[in-house]
Amino acid sequence: MENFQSFDRLSLNQATTQRWNLREAVDGCARAEIPWIGLWRDKIAEIGLKESSKLVRDVGLKVSGIIKGGMFPSASVGEWQRIIDENRRAIEETAELGANALVMVGGGLPNKDLDYARKQFKEGIAELVPFAQTHGVKLGIEPLHPMFAADRSVVVTLAQANEIAKSYHPNDVGVVIDVYHVWWDPDLYNQISYTGEHIIGFHVSDWLIPTPDMLKGRGMMGDGIIEIRRIRKAVDAAGYTGPIEVEIFNQQLWDQPGDEVLEVVKKRFLEHV
Amino acid sequence: MENFQSFDRLSLNQATTQRWNLREAVDGCARAEIPWIGLWRDKIAEIGLKESSKLVRDVGLKVSGIIKGGMFPSASVGEWQRIIDENRRAIEETAELGANALVMVGGGLPNKDLDYARKQFKEGIAELVPFAQTHGVKLGIEPLHPMFAADRSVVVTLAQANEIAKSYHPNDVGVVIDVYHVWWDPDLYNQISYTGEHIIGFHVSDWLIPTPDMLKGRGMMGDGIIEIRRIRKAVDAAGYTGPIEVEIFNQQLWDQPGDEVLEVVKKRFLEHV
Repeated sequence: MENFQSFDRLSLNQATTQRWNLREAVDGCARAEIPWIGLWRDKIAEIGLKESSKLVRDVGLKVSGIIKGGMFPSASVGEWQRIIDENRRAIEETAELGANALVMVGGGLPNKDLDYARKQFKEGIAELVPFAQTHGVKLGIEPLHPMFAADRSVVVTLAQANEIAKSYHPNDVGVVIDVYHVWWDPDLYNQISYTGEHIIGFHVSDWLIPTPDMLKGRGMMGDGIIEIRRIRKAVDAAGYTGPIEVEIFNQQLWDQPGDEVLEVVKKRFLEHV
Repeated sequence: MENFQSFDRLSLNQATTQRWNLREAVDGCARAEIPWIGLWRDKIAEIGLKESSKLVRDVGLKVSGIIKGGMFPSASVGEWQRIIDENRRAIEETAELGANALVMVGGGLPNKDLDYARKQFKEGIAELVPFAQTHGVKLGIEPLHPMFAADRSVVVTLAQANEIAKSYHPNDVGVVIDVYHVWWDPDLYNQISYTGEHIIGFHVSDWLIPTPDMLKGRGMMGDGIIEIRRIRKAVDAAGYTGPIEVEIFNQQLWDQPGDEVLEVVKKRFLEHV
C-alpha cells in the first residue's frame, strides 16, 4: 500500500534553503522535480504576493503550507488586534496561493501567565475560523517542542493541539505534525492515531546529538535519532495522504549550495521518511 | 499555613556552586545558615565518602538528595550490568549520607529505539528497589525537560515518572519535581496533585528568555518566566513538606564567589519560591 520510493509527497519547506529567495526556491524545486513547496511569509513579501503566486503556478508547483500564522499571546488589546489583522492577511495569502493550510504557531509568553497565553491562542483560532472559512483556508495548528514554550509557542504537545482542533471540522482546523517537535512525547503514537483526519500537514527533519543550536540545530533525516519512518507510518495509518515537508533549520546546511541540498533531501527522503 | 518567610526548607544543590568542592559547599551552607544540601557523586568522590559524611554531620547539615543514579538505557548486557553496579554504589552512598533520596535520571538513547530505552529505565528501577529497601534508601525519579530526551533522559514528563513510581510504595520509589524541567507541561498541575505523597523532592531555578545555553543556561529564581511560587504551592498542596533544592546550572553564576551566590539564593528564595 505505502510507497516509500516516490517523490509524489515530497515538499521543500523554504526554511531548508534559507538563502534562496522564493524565485530561486521555485526554480530549484522545478529542476529537482520536487512537486510541493512550503512558503514563508517573509519570502512571499520579498517578491510580492501576486508575483509569488504566478511563479508557483507557472512551474506547476503545489503549495503544502504557508508559514506562519498564530502568535496570538499579547499583553494589550492593541497588540491583540494587530496580531488578528496580520493573521487575516496571512489567510488571504494562503487563499491566493492555493495552499493546503496556514500553519498556526502558538507564540511565546508576553508575561509569566502561561494559562492566559494558552487561552489567548485558543481564542485567536476561534476569532479567525469564520474569516478562514470564507476564504476556503484551513488552519493547521503546529505544536512546537517544549524548549520553545517560553519564546515561540505556548502550544507544545499534540494533545494540546488536538484539544483545540477537535472542536472544529477538519476542513476548518487541523493539526500539523513535525517529528522534530513531537518525537520525545510518551503519548506520541496514541495522539497521532487520535488526530486522525485532523492531520493536515507533516514535517520531517532529525534531532542531532548533540544539538548544535536550539534554533538552527536541526539535522538532515538520517543524521539523528528520530524514528522518522515509524512516525511517518503512524501518520499514514491515521489517514494522512498529503505532502511531507522537509523543514530543516541548520546553519551548515544553509551554507551549502541549494541544488546540492535538494539532492541530499531527495536521497534521505527515500531512505528515512 | 504556608510559610514563605523561612529558610527551614532551603537546600543548596551543589550544581549551583559548581566551583566549590564538597568541603567548601558545606562550609558555605554553614556560614549562610542553609540547613539542607544536595550532593553530587563526583563531588563526594573527590573528598571520599567517609570524609564527606563526617563533614556534613559535623556542621549538622541535612542531605536532601544524592545526584545521581539511573542512566539505565544501554546497548549491551555488559554495559547494563556496569550501570546496575554503579547504581548499587550510589545507593550505598545515599544510605551512608542519610540523604532523603537518590535522584534517578533517565539516561539518554544508546540507539534510535526510544521505547526500548524507556523499558530499560523501568527495569532498572525494578532491579534496584530490593537493594535500596535493604539500605533504607528511597529512589526519586526526576523527569528532565524534553530537550534532554536524546542525550540525558528518556523520562521527560511527570506522567511518565508517575506511571513507574505509582507501582511502588512512596517509601521506596517517588518523584522529584524540578520546575525547570516541567513548567511547560499542559498537564502540570493535574500531575502534581496526582503525584501526591510520591513527591520526595522539589527543585527550583528559572527559565530565561533567551536561553543562553541548553545545559548551562538556567536562571536564578525571579529572572525568568516560570511561575515558581504557583508550582511550589501546588507541590505543598499535594502534601510535600520536605526540602526545596535550588539547582542552577549557569556559567555566569559559577563565575561568581560562592558566598555571594548564596546571598542571592536566599533573597530570591523568599521572594519567588
